[in-house]
Amino acid sequence: MNFCSNCGSPVTLEIPAGDHRPRHVCGNCGTIHYLNPKVVVVSVPEYEGKILICKRGIEPRLGYWAIPGGFLENGETLEAGAAREAFEEAVIDVEIGSLLLLANVTHANQIHVFFRSRMRTPSFDVTPESTEVRLVDVADIPWNDLAFPSTEAALRHYVADRAAGVERHHVAEMRRRF
Amino acid sequence: MNFCSNCGSPVTLEIPAGDHRPRHVCGNCGTIHYLNPKVVVVSVPEYEGKILICKRGIEPRLGYWAIPGGFLENGETLEAGAAREAFEEAVIDVEIGSLLLLANVTHANQIHVFFRSRMRTPSFDVTPESTEVRLVDVADIPWNDLAFPSTEAALRHYVADRAAGVERHHVAEMRRRF
Repeated sequence: MNFCSNCGSPVTLEIPAGDHRPRHVCGNCGTIHYLNPKVVVVSVPEYEGKILICKRGIEPRLGYWAIPGGFLENGETLEAGAAREAFEEAVIDVEIGSLLLLANVTHANQIHVFFRSRMRTPSFDVTPESTEVRLVDVADIPWNDLAFPSTEAALRHYVADRAAGVERHHVAEMRRRF
Repeated sequence: MNFCSNCGSPVTLEIPAGDHRPRHVCGNCGTIHYLNPKVVVVSVPEYEGKILICKRGIEPRLGYWAIPGGFLENGETLEAGAAREAFEEAVIDVEIGSLLLLANVTHANQIHVFFRSRMRTPSFDVTPESTEVRLVDVADIPWNDLAFPSTEAALRHYVADRAAGVERHHVAEMRRRF
């Protein structure tokens, strides 16, 4: 951040009075610009026991397998965002279910929120964001070619919980970068 | 947002190619500026069955009762942020426990994440953010003078779950404004 988004003047890094860390402060209008973590909403879509995975058609991690997700937008709930992303990435219609994983991804300044979800119909398609979309058995999850550490953590919890017949939630920190 | 934080030129609202909603786009350097929801981290601090509440010394809702919380900062986990806020607002040392409530506060473009927490010692104090801090019995929670709808939702779930002897988590949308 170099300039004030309010008045266009240069900003400097300083600790405002009463604050505890450096912020970008405008030298002209005094606006303090806060930078905060972003929320990524994701779901594990299931249809008759199979789960839907997408081969990423965009960076980061182009060509690796993921489950549908993306940045939460202003004005939408976590569940609405997760359902929107599922449609955008794989043209699927999902009902968002229980909370699966809250992942702290501190090195990327992100919080990843994973839900279980149920596909209302078996239809899906490729999109500009997904070069390939598949419904796979749990035994066919491509563990060595998953896009992000949080993708793997979510799927491992999903599989273990399903085998145990429970729908728990988990809170974890992703220390490994992809 | 009026100016580009990267180069200082004016921005305009337009829908970028491949996107689905208007964004602030710089007419000079082309940077797309996304606005996303912020995460607020909160906890319900408990000490020997009593819970700690703070009378807000700052706006919004100055003079109303809340539990310690605030915006999650870049580089910290949800739990670290909730513990930091507890110290900043009431000078208490807490161990963050189980997830209590994920509250969608869409009208404010916020996600509120509430945890249960345990005070390691009974000491607390007022701060610039809290004009009064109290350890109260559940029967003495000032239900009619709580700061935010999510404060009330979290405390109601907390009390009900504790009475039931469980530590569930809840996901809800806050439709009412304060």
